[in-house]
Amino acid sequence: MSFEFDEHIAVRDVEGAAGEHDAQLSSGWMVGGAVNGGYLLAVIGHAVSRTLPEKPDPIAVSAYYLSASAPGPARASVRVLRDGGSVATVSAELAQGDDVRLTALATFGSLGSLSDDVPEGWTAAAQPPDLPPVDECVPGSMAPPEVLEMAPFVRRFDIRFDPRMIGWALGQPSGRGEMQAWLRLVDGREPDPLLLLMAVDALPPVSMDLGRTGWAPTLELTAHVRAAPAPGWLRIRHATRHVSGGMFEEDCEVWDSTDRLVAQSRQLARLPRS
Amino acid sequence: MSFEFDEHIAVRDVEGAAGEHDAQLSSGWMVGGAVNGGYLLAVIGHAVSRTLPEKPDPIAVSAYYLSASAPGPARASVRVLRDGGSVATVSAELAQGDDVRLTALATFGSLGSLSDDVPEGWTAAAQPPDLPPVDECVPGSMAPPEVLEMAPFVRRFDIRFDPRMIGWALGQPSGRGEMQAWLRLVDGREPDPLLLLMAVDALPPVSMDLGRTGWAPTLELTAHVRAAPAPGWLRIRHATRHVSGGMFEEDCEVWDSTDRLVAQSRQLARLPRS
Repeated sequence: MSFEFDEHIAVRDVEGAAGEHDAQLSSGWMVGGAVNGGYLLAVIGHAVSRTLPEKPDPIAVSAYYLSASAPGPARASVRVLRDGGSVATVSAELAQGDDVRLTALATFGSLGSLSDDVPEGWTAAAQPPDLPPVDECVPGSMAPPEVLEMAPFVRRFDIRFDPRMIGWALGQPSGRGEMQAWLRLVDGREPDPLLLLMAVDALPPVSMDLGRTGWAPTLELTAHVRAAPAPGWLRIRHATRHVSGGMFEEDCEVWDSTDRLVAQSRQLARLPRS
Repeated sequence: MSFEFDEHIAVRDVEGAAGEHDAQLSSGWMVGGAVNGGYLLAVIGHAVSRTLPEKPDPIAVSAYYLSASAPGPARASVRVLRDGGSVATVSAELAQGDDVRLTALATFGSLGSLSDDVPEGWTAAAQPPDLPPVDECVPGSMAPPEVLEMAPFVRRFDIRFDPRMIGWALGQPSGRGEMQAWLRLVDGREPDPLLLLMAVDALPPVSMDLGRTGWAPTLELTAHVRAAPAPGWLRIRHATRHVSGGMFEEDCEVWDSTDRLVAQSRQLARLPRS
């Protein structure tokens, strides 16, 4: 069975050019005038996976966004900087023609082979988000038609927003800058580590909940994949702690259906003007 | 007046080689067998500053640590990837001979020229750490002589630990993985954006408070400088939310003497074995 996410992040090795991969950015992942940054991260993550077949899983990925991507052909270039022991570190770039869209550093490994050592007496501060049952949450498909038109990538997901943190969609932002939702792909494609790279940037920016509805361009996004996700719904929590210099940071946690924290990310983005 | 931090992060432009800088890593910043990672970040940050004189301040820096640094000569290489508008993005590398010690991506700008726009009705989640007065905190100089011997870089700071979170130093880790302290340089050198790059990695790893006293090598560290710090003491809070795959993430916030959040960072590090 084939799923659209896999088709859309597919890359083809360029013959005779180690680390070079051709990709085709799908228009289905656009939001506003650009292609969603999390989708781009999954595309480049996929190219790294192919370059490091024995270390196929992202563990840490830091991406700096240099220019807005457009649907169509793109080139993903991966250069291995260090490959030894259980992890490898690479630099990677996604370009369209002469324009670099994003540049990244990443450490990859095999999540299944990592240690399960935890300290005795350890108390985890991170706890799964408190979310009402899926059926009591607000589906993204209820967004106004103009939003679905502007952000076709929303149609790729079954997304259910926590109704207690949805004021921003009704013109009543809380001012706190937080958002929670259930998420899965509409075609039943189960989550895996590459999907998590997309999931950390799938929700609207929390600046919406600060009353700023414009585009919030990401300067930098770092994602840590903490474990391979189990099948089923993901739960996502986004929050910001601080606004300064016309920027805000957005933290994201992704939890799987077994109550396991599977990814964390933080991005620094520009606050849309009022 | 000259200060040792400035002497130790000094770099010399290599003539005729744009973006290339010679540095001399000081043995005074060692901890265990290696040079402190935050100090390395400040050295490379300084090289980026010199390459971008009109955008001298770090805004976001992501460093991937590839091998342990030793005191002595090093080469900092900076390549400008994009320079337009209010910020510039670079890749940078610190090498000793043929060995790359760390590779980084960074966005620099001028902190003083950034917008002070904040959303109406915004409620900041980030609040200054609750720390007892400096005089009621535990000076780092009270560490056992063998610790000061092993980590000479501790002598560069006047550091005062929150006595309520110092159990780890007395063989009674809390299991929560948290730590707070006042920090300033012993010679009176005031904080600036480059010093913040060092400050985010100046405290012992929070794995100490998880009962793991060994070395916790950093895989990746991203720092966001949110504002230029005012003169005076810095307050630093480190905490982890999660351990998995034999790794933990460590979040850091740095606050200045005017109660302003001046830097945030997150690193992914290996949990020392028990």
